[in-house]
Amino acid sequence: MKICKVIGHVWATKKEERLEGLKLMVIQEDEPGKSKKEVFVAADTVCAGIGDQVIVVSGSTARKVFGRDDMPVDEAIVAIIDNLEIGQEAE
Amino acid sequence: MKICKVIGHVWATKKEERLEGLKLMVIQEDEPGKSKKEVFVAADTVCAGIGDQVIVVSGSTARKVFGRDDMPVDEAIVAIIDNLEIGQEAE
Amino acid sequence: MKICKVIGHVWATKKEERLEGLKLMVIQEDEPGKSKKEVFVAADTVCAGIGDQVIVVSGSTARKVFGRDDMPVDEAIVAIIDNLEIGQEAE
Amino acid sequence: MKICKVIGHVWATKKEERLEGLKLMVIQEDEPGKSKKEVFVAADTVCAGIGDQVIVVSGSTARKVFGRDDMPVDEAIVAIIDNLEIGQEAE
Amino acid sequence: MKICKVIGHVWATKKEERLEGLKLMVIQEDEPGKSKKEVFVAADTVCAGIGDQVIVVSGSTARKVFGRDDMPVDEAIVAIIDNLEIGQEAE
Repeated sequence: MKICKVIGHVWATKKEERLEGLKLMVIQEDEPGKSKKEVFVAADTVCAGIGDQVIVVSGSTARKVFGRDDMPVDEAIVAIIDNLEIGQEAE
Repeated sequence: MKICKVIGHVWATKKEERLEGLKLMVIQEDEPGKSKKEVFVAADTVCAGIGDQVIVVSGSTARKVFGRDDMPVDEAIVAIIDNLEIGQEAE
Repeated sequence: MKICKVIGHVWATKKEERLEGLKLMVIQEDEPGKSKKEVFVAADTVCAGIGDQVIVVSGSTARKVFGRDDMPVDEAIVAIIDNLEIGQEAE
Repeated sequence: MKICKVIGHVWATKKEERLEGLKLMVIQEDEPGKSKKEVFVAADTVCAGIGDQVIVVSGSTARKVFGRDDMPVDEAIVAIIDNLEIGQEAE
Repeated sequence: MKICKVIGHVWATKKEERLEGLKLMVIQEDEPGKSKKEVFVAADTVCAGIGDQVIVVSGSTARKVFGRDDMPVDEAIVAIIDNLEIGQEAE
């Protein structure tokens, strides 16, 4: 799972109908030591807010989170991180 | 989901028969702050046009959008973005 | 789906038996503006030839093309491109 | 499967309920010769500890490890490496 | 499918029980013209040996090779390459 930060919202009127009601957020990778941090869109399941550090799942796993296999979603926020305890420093 | 821009169309006469009738578009990644923006092909489901900023799903999720699991498609446009509201600037 | 070019053939005598009879081709990414173009192997379904510009699907979608879910294939050629019409130049 | 090292723990109170009880660890890629080593989160299945060199599976395979297909997990530790015997040096 | 070379073995006593009996090998990408060649672990199905150039499948396809969908494997060797015949030089 990716370590990310929530940085914004996405508004889309014209969309696949199964996206109705989903909270779509703009997410940025937030790994310790990473320079190029990708920005993408994820569906929220845990009421995350701007600035939260979160865990994001990708691919078919993101669909499974919503309890139906036909969701047009391939990234989902599944946890808000309280603390990253790194015992051995990332090189 | 990826933030992309629609930049063109693809024409292909000789193709897998399940691709018949699908609108295939040339897409480019359009993430804030990204330098190397990949170009690829996606099937459209929301009547997107050239220049639209869109949300694209990948992998098995792209097939699910079409309501049958055997579609030879691994990228699909699922929404046209009205607005990206970024509350915390992408670094 | 990836925009690629067919650049060669692969010969393999010792292989998973479900690969028997498949035409395996050497493929190179062919995106407009891309510098590092990856080379890989894809199974052909549309009688593509050396030099053709093609559309390639990846992952589980490549298996689905063959109508059985247990094919040991994760890249498949699904169309030969006649024309890429790019209305808005790739940056 | 990726060769990684366990470098820390993740604490998250607010999370998808199916993550309850899982041990989530901070992982870093540990391939011989690799310079940019990504950091991510994986669910542990083999009682790995900080500093262990481990094998990690990704995507839908990570869910299958837990014996139920709806786990919100896309990376899982499946083995602790005793020894990597490299007969031909990685270039 | 990826073009790779077999460069070593992995030994792991403590592992997911479904990995018992599988031959796990250290693999390196071996694409013509590629500079950064990733190293990873794959399960062998064709009795490959050190130094062999092989075809590797990834993701859910790697599981399917083993005829059961719950294998904790996401890379598998499915063919030993006799010859790569490249008709149009990789750029």
